[in-house]
Amino acid sequence: MTAYDDLMAFQRETEALAQVAGRLGWDQETMMPRGAAPQRAEEMAAMESVLHARRIDPRVADWLAKIDDGALDPVGRANLRHIRRDHERASKVPAQLAARIARVTSEAQGIWAEARAADDFSAFAPTLTEVIALKREEGQALATDGDVYDAMLQDYEPGTTGDQIASMFDALRPELSELRAAVRAAEAPPRLQGSFDEAAQMKLTRHLAKTFGYDMSMGRVDKAVHPFSSGSGLDVRITTRTNPADPFNCFYSTIHEVGHAAYEQGIDRAYLLTPLGSGVSMGVHESQSRIYENQIGRSRAFTSWLFGQMKDAFGDFGIADAETFYRVVNRVNDGYIRTEADELQYNLHVMLRFDLERALVAHDLQVSEMEAAWNDRFEADFGYPVDKPSNGVLQDVHWSVGLLGYFPTYSLGNVYAGCLHEAMRAALPDLDASLAQGNTEPATAWLRANVQTHGGLMEPREVIAHATGKPPTESPLLAYLRAKFTEIYGL
Amino acid sequence: MTAYDDLMAFQRETEALAQVAGRLGWDQETMMPRGAAPQRAEEMAAMESVLHARRIDPRVADWLAKIDDGALDPVGRANLRHIRRDHERASKVPAQLAARIARVTSEAQGIWAEARAADDFSAFAPTLTEVIALKREEGQALATDGDVYDAMLQDYEPGTTGDQIASMFDALRPELSELRAAVRAAEAPPRLQGSFDEAAQMKLTRHLAKTFGYDMSMGRVDKAVHPFSSGSGLDVRITTRTNPADPFNCFYSTIHEVGHAAYEQGIDRAYLLTPLGSGVSMGVHESQSRIYENQIGRSRAFTSWLFGQMKDAFGDFGIADAETFYRVVNRVNDGYIRTEADELQYNLHVMLRFDLERALVAHDLQVSEMEAAWNDRFEADFGYPVDKPSNGVLQDVHWSVGLLGYFPTYSLGNVYAGCLHEAMRAALPDLDASLAQGNTEPATAWLRANVQTHGGLMEPREVIAHATGKPPTESPLLAYLRAKFTEIYGL
Repeated sequence: MTAYDDLMAFQRETEALAQVAGRLGWDQETMMPRGAAPQRAEEMAAMESVLHARRIDPRVADWLAKIDDGALDPVGRANLRHIRRDHERASKVPAQLAARIARVTSEAQGIWAEARAADDFSAFAPTLTEVIALKREEGQALATDGDVYDAMLQDYEPGTTGDQIASMFDALRPELSELRAAVRAAEAPPRLQGSFDEAAQMKLTRHLAKTFGYDMSMGRVDKAVHPFSSGSGLDVRITTRTNPADPFNCFYSTIHEVGHAAYEQGIDRAYLLTPLGSGVSMGVHESQSRIYENQIGRSRAFTSWLFGQMKDAFGDFGIADAETFYRVVNRVNDGYIRTEADELQYNLHVMLRFDLERALVAHDLQVSEMEAAWNDRFEADFGYPVDKPSNGVLQDVHWSVGLLGYFPTYSLGNVYAGCLHEAMRAALPDLDASLAQGNTEPATAWLRANVQTHGGLMEPREVIAHATGKPPTESPLLAYLRAKFTEIYGL
Repeated sequence: MTAYDDLMAFQRETEALAQVAGRLGWDQETMMPRGAAPQRAEEMAAMESVLHARRIDPRVADWLAKIDDGALDPVGRANLRHIRRDHERASKVPAQLAARIARVTSEAQGIWAEARAADDFSAFAPTLTEVIALKREEGQALATDGDVYDAMLQDYEPGTTGDQIASMFDALRPELSELRAAVRAAEAPPRLQGSFDEAAQMKLTRHLAKTFGYDMSMGRVDKAVHPFSSGSGLDVRITTRTNPADPFNCFYSTIHEVGHAAYEQGIDRAYLLTPLGSGVSMGVHESQSRIYENQIGRSRAFTSWLFGQMKDAFGDFGIADAETFYRVVNRVNDGYIRTEADELQYNLHVMLRFDLERALVAHDLQVSEMEAAWNDRFEADFGYPVDKPSNGVLQDVHWSVGLLGYFPTYSLGNVYAGCLHEAMRAALPDLDASLAQGNTEPATAWLRANVQTHGGLMEPREVIAHATGKPPTESPLLAYLRAKFTEIYGL
């Protein structure tokens, strides 16, 4: 056994333990009896403690020091890059600070949920202040002399900086705002109406999951309050939700989560339980969920097939034809909530959060000013005022659990999806004919071969560049959105 | 922090991790997609490796050496007894042997399942030979100079010896055989016939679980191939199964598992995630499942209520009255399978296995002779020949997974249940009036207060002696069975 072999054997056990911890999270949201919560908190903390101890294990440093990176193949070098990054990150954060962040964010989630239910930001502000202070301290430890927010971003999108994100939003904002204004001034498509049986929604949603290539022999679909995908390798589970008035929420949540799950399921099996065996970043992950959900799932061709499926499942539901159905699916609605936003407006919600959290971390904004800052910015960007905190500054869980630097990866994912979609359409000129038959295989196979299979082999932007033949830019997404909504709204 | 506090903090994390490993086992039998099996094997192995490392952690030996047991209260001394026992056991078994046993028994389970499906003992024999040899080696390491089978028993029933078990079976065998012969010669009650809707079975089974005090806010009921109870403390889950032709299998499996689960749920909350926070032994565990299932669940009083519940759930199902129903529930049937055996015959199945496995461990029997030995013994004890290995030597999973010394705890549980039932009836002279109303609360409360709440505080036989006021013997069980079946069969 060489030092590399020893390190990889140790790492494989760590990856397996991380999968166990992840499955515990799945269980908590789907199966766990409510009364088990206090015990579960101790179980999760124990798993985290084991994982943390392994990440900072001095043997890892010894092995890393002994290995000659130059003697390794690209897979070996990529493994080392991930292990070294995790080890350095874990070693930089003092154990007491890590434990305190874990405890405070665990409590903060409950406090946030209560404050949101009560529509009272002031009940959450002291906790948020504490979370921000702790995460800033962690960011300072990680950043050494660099920018604290940049250091935070590395946890979700390695290699990306706050300035790059700001440039991305600078490129997106004017066109999106202009297009949105034109759409709002035009005549809107009809809305979906009526009530849709929830068991029938779940049946069709499972069919949709399979249609998008989700391998049910290594996964499962359950209901949860918030849709999510969980796990890597041979056990990747998704959740969705049902609402009798809104079957699209069920179907497009499922397709979105299948995008995440297909990424995990599509990674080269040789990387199973290694650092390359999971999606490489939140941005690339979101590119898969978004392209499944939007560029494929909300396309005219695919919705023409989905229209027939919905008629089969629910009978006549008041939409006359496939073309109208396409416009209904893509209707642009006023609203407050990011997770309910359409393709056109979604990134406007994200850039608001990015600017606020970056200012918070830089001390340019205080928690006490957050609610007013959110409301001012929202009205400026969207043209109508926030009616209550649960529709505004309290709507997202992220900040309460210490996810600072996470939001921008949603927009990065959209931008990456735009690039991939452009390249995929060029490679598959007849794709629409397949999609109109409910056959997504050409698209999902292209994404598997060009993105998913590589897992963590390349850095995030490299994955997209490798798949498309050029560095990612905002142009393809903007061109796609402009063409789509100009046509739907007859602009 | 004293050494005791440090040790208990460390142990608490270990207990939490053990709960996680147990929940992974539950998931595997209820929720896991089939294709995840290879990854799951690595996840389980990683958890076992973490738990093993903690059990042999040198800090545990240091803490144990520093603590003055005499200065502790009874709870503290009991905690130390458990921790010391686990630490010494884990330290005695060489790591390589433990790893080999884990790997071989993991593979052996699949080989056993295939051999059983093919009704071919010879396909399983080489693997069984290897398992026995490895477990014998482990037993020798644990026994130091003592008896190897006695050492194996300690894993399931601390403080019990093979000679004690042999004496128990010597006391049970003549009376059970004689009573069984008389019952078989008498006229049998009718059998249950017809088909029973499986969804209605699950609905009634959940009602039965609650009726027996199972706390659904800290547990859940799912279907699995084999019924089991899993977990301790605030998250104790059970499974059951349905068969349209045999609703009793569903209901009595549920009541049995609720007995196990109620034990775990009934332990003093102060012992949560400590060595005292789980049932103290397999025998005491089985005493709870058996007394719930048999002495309470199959009593005339309780079945009179269950008869009405089944009529409500299924309409007229061909049984005229509660008295006939009681006799149907307690019908003694010829059969081959231990898990399907009635109260009267169950222990005959167990003593056969005990004698065979004890002879195997002592080198008095070879694996090559096992099938013939089983068949000869079965025919001698039951009066008819085994028709195929899946109804004989291949029927139980236990030996394939290395559970040697486990079988006798089933009969110990029955004997303990007999003792507890005698004492409980003396303490609750009006119990039948409650049971006839479907109210098990006086019985379950008595068991909680006298047995369950103590968790691991006392040694197994002490628990029973403390609850009943005298050391456990076989007499109460034999007297109960004689009275019950003499009356049902009009002997």
